[in-house]
Amino acid sequence: MTSDAIAALKTALGPKGWSEDPNDIAAHTRDWRGRWQGETPILLKPANTEEVSQAVRICAKAGIAITPQGGNTGLVGGSIPRGEVLISMSRMRSIREIDTANDSITVDAGCILETVQETAAEQNRLFPLSLGSQGSASIGGLISTNAGGVHVLRYGMMRDLILGIEAVLPDGRIWNGLRGLRKDNSGYDLKQVFIGAEGTLGIVTAATLKLFPKPAEMCVAFAGIPSPEAAVDLLGIAKQASGGSLSALEIVPRNALELVLAHIPGTRDPLERPHPWYALLEIGAGRIGEGRTAMEAALGEGFEAGLVQDAVIAENETQALALWQLREPIAEAEKAHGKAAKHDVSIPVSRIAAFIREATDASEKLVDGANVIAFGHVGDGNVHFNVAHRNEGAGDDFLKICEPATEAIYDLVQKYGGSIAAEHGVGTLKSGDLAQRRPLEVELMKSIKAALDPKGIMNPRVLIPVR
Amino acid sequence: MTSDAIAALKTALGPKGWSEDPNDIAAHTRDWRGRWQGETPILLKPANTEEVSQAVRICAKAGIAITPQGGNTGLVGGSIPRGEVLISMSRMRSIREIDTANDSITVDAGCILETVQETAAEQNRLFPLSLGSQGSASIGGLISTNAGGVHVLRYGMMRDLILGIEAVLPDGRIWNGLRGLRKDNSGYDLKQVFIGAEGTLGIVTAATLKLFPKPAEMCVAFAGIPSPEAAVDLLGIAKQASGGSLSALEIVPRNALELVLAHIPGTRDPLERPHPWYALLEIGAGRIGEGRTAMEAALGEGFEAGLVQDAVIAENETQALALWQLREPIAEAEKAHGKAAKHDVSIPVSRIAAFIREATDASEKLVDGANVIAFGHVGDGNVHFNVAHRNEGAGDDFLKICEPATEAIYDLVQKYGGSIAAEHGVGTLKSGDLAQRRPLEVELMKSIKAALDPKGIMNPRVLIPVR
Repeated sequence: MTSDAIAALKTALGPKGWSEDPNDIAAHTRDWRGRWQGETPILLKPANTEEVSQAVRICAKAGIAITPQGGNTGLVGGSIPRGEVLISMSRMRSIREIDTANDSITVDAGCILETVQETAAEQNRLFPLSLGSQGSASIGGLISTNAGGVHVLRYGMMRDLILGIEAVLPDGRIWNGLRGLRKDNSGYDLKQVFIGAEGTLGIVTAATLKLFPKPAEMCVAFAGIPSPEAAVDLLGIAKQASGGSLSALEIVPRNALELVLAHIPGTRDPLERPHPWYALLEIGAGRIGEGRTAMEAALGEGFEAGLVQDAVIAENETQALALWQLREPIAEAEKAHGKAAKHDVSIPVSRIAAFIREATDASEKLVDGANVIAFGHVGDGNVHFNVAHRNEGAGDDFLKICEPATEAIYDLVQKYGGSIAAEHGVGTLKSGDLAQRRPLEVELMKSIKAALDPKGIMNPRVLIPVR
Repeated sequence: MTSDAIAALKTALGPKGWSEDPNDIAAHTRDWRGRWQGETPILLKPANTEEVSQAVRICAKAGIAITPQGGNTGLVGGSIPRGEVLISMSRMRSIREIDTANDSITVDAGCILETVQETAAEQNRLFPLSLGSQGSASIGGLISTNAGGVHVLRYGMMRDLILGIEAVLPDGRIWNGLRGLRKDNSGYDLKQVFIGAEGTLGIVTAATLKLFPKPAEMCVAFAGIPSPEAAVDLLGIAKQASGGSLSALEIVPRNALELVLAHIPGTRDPLERPHPWYALLEIGAGRIGEGRTAMEAALGEGFEAGLVQDAVIAENETQALALWQLREPIAEAEKAHGKAAKHDVSIPVSRIAAFIREATDASEKLVDGANVIAFGHVGDGNVHFNVAHRNEGAGDDFLKICEPATEAIYDLVQKYGGSIAAEHGVGTLKSGDLAQRRPLEVELMKSIKAALDPKGIMNPRVLIPVR
């Protein structure tokens, strides 16, 4: 890297726009799970799109590689630099415009998800993306990883919530695609290429997002169920009973609930007796009472069919939050318990129960003391299939032991027509597996990458390693 | 074109797989509106994906250009060959699989939309895409044009309804991306590149589509309203009252209703007195009665706010169909009246009323005897803004007169942050306008096109003309 380029970057962004201080940099070069430790010659913090453009232009000219970073809540190493210039969007946090008649909001890429949710709620609107890290995850990062979360069932992934984006291209030019349009068939839908590209095609600097009417009622229930099969059958019943207003159906195995009860303060089991599995259901309704009516109908039908063993429906928002608190902090509870080999996979909903059974058997055979924790968004066919150890305090050595299980799990995912990267993305963690399991697709991705980033400077080690 | 290649195509596809008979070819080389008359040396009708692959491989080797065609219901000239080999998907009409637990259906690209709708309904599921040509439009064509229609408001465009696709690439290789997954963040979402590409990147041969619970009740209402502004305000009210279950909000001006009443047999005005504008609303509900309750609440609030002057709610499915029959055949009624300059445009919903007013003024100033008919999917910001003549029987000469109006209308679309190609696509009709109005985007599209179709043989005159 030439010192000329570094000097030019400093000049372009001004004193607030960069740092070489190891203390400043530290928080940006390590991931949440503590799996990767990266490094960067300089941390850039542009204040606006024009500064991002200038920074990228300087890097492009000098052939310097860039890692873009949002809230650094990613789980696959996609935002951790290994010598690249790090461009953090943390100073670009403005809400640019909210247009309630168009049900849209335009925000800077560094804007935090929770801020968008709250701004929408103030206007009696819903921004439905909802996930554990919403207090620190940024919109740009959520776009670049096409984030999922607990409301995909009704509202879709981040991709489905985007009307337009603004991005800085790998040569530094600004593409303003910030349109608030529901329909725009003007050739290839370019924003789709940037969504989920993990920063390998440019830097998303702003987005126009869809808003929805805020449901008048959100009815949440927690049910004890015998098996994942029961969850899939209950899903069909609840979708029908709610007329498509079911916004979440999550499954939680007993062992995950136990971890939460042990490690997360203030939680308690809402059902009298233990059950092998649990389903958390949420229905949003336009009129108060209709959500509860639909929930009671779904659970009632589930009882009769032997799918539901016991259930509780939240009477108010506090109780609803308490039920969500049994599901949302599972990752945190797992972390407190020890390290685990984590697999964020998806399977067609119709085959998910069979997959869980077979993958559990395989893992238990391959890993001594394995405690399989399979939970998540069964309504979307997305399971977080984690192999933990029965005892507390497992470390990196345990992860090593789990490697053959990972291979077996991914083979089963492929057998069942699934994906080894469901909602967390590929990053550096899964790029090798992806290339091995989907060679033709990776070849096509490489063509697109080469077309849009011919110098290969955008997040070059991530997703589809170039060189 | 070499006769060797033609001979090879005939051998590969067998006697049922090709035709050089002008009578067979005629129906495939003219569009529905009668705007384009094309030609082809040979019409190919492959029976399966493997045959499509072989045909493309032969063409690619010989450097012969291809036009893919679905139901030939397109409105922008994208499926009309001008000397290219024509590949019709009309023999590939199978339903491959329906998976109710996964709420998905996998079909051949030549499958007709209505067949998919009916197959879903038999399983108590909804495939929500719904548009005028559904009796002949094919799934592959609907994917390649990212079709819209009347249910986009709740369910999205065709893009939003696709889980996976299978496509033959420009070199003849088959890409099997037929996955039934709701979440799959395995790098760039390649299917997004093919969706809406109008056959310029390959041939879609099959797709896995999303199904939805079939609403227990579909409540339809037809309201007399004072203005497009009122429709936008009513939209906000109805979205809120229905908790997001509003599946359509269409506007119809009085002059369009009059054309329908004059030209479409069996139609009648359901309201006592004439109104300047009308809104057709549809709400789907999971439980019988809830749709009507929401509709009455929305219309009641609309009355009080002076947005609704009069309204009728359908009491049963027959009445609901009769109300839709006042909206759906507008294009047909227009056709019976005479030629019109048609503009399929979109605008942010919040600005659509201002756009309609300004564009109407401009058109009336520029075109003597203009009768502006602006109708359509106001809930999505999509207006079919058509300049007809006051008198019956306008012909091609009138279209010529309208050209300056088209320019003025497109300028206003751009001023209001809209799109000149909302749901019908670009084709050959708008490729020049697109290149002029979105130069950077067209440059990026050309890069992608060159990367995936380096020989430029896939529908080469369409969307982004290559030479």
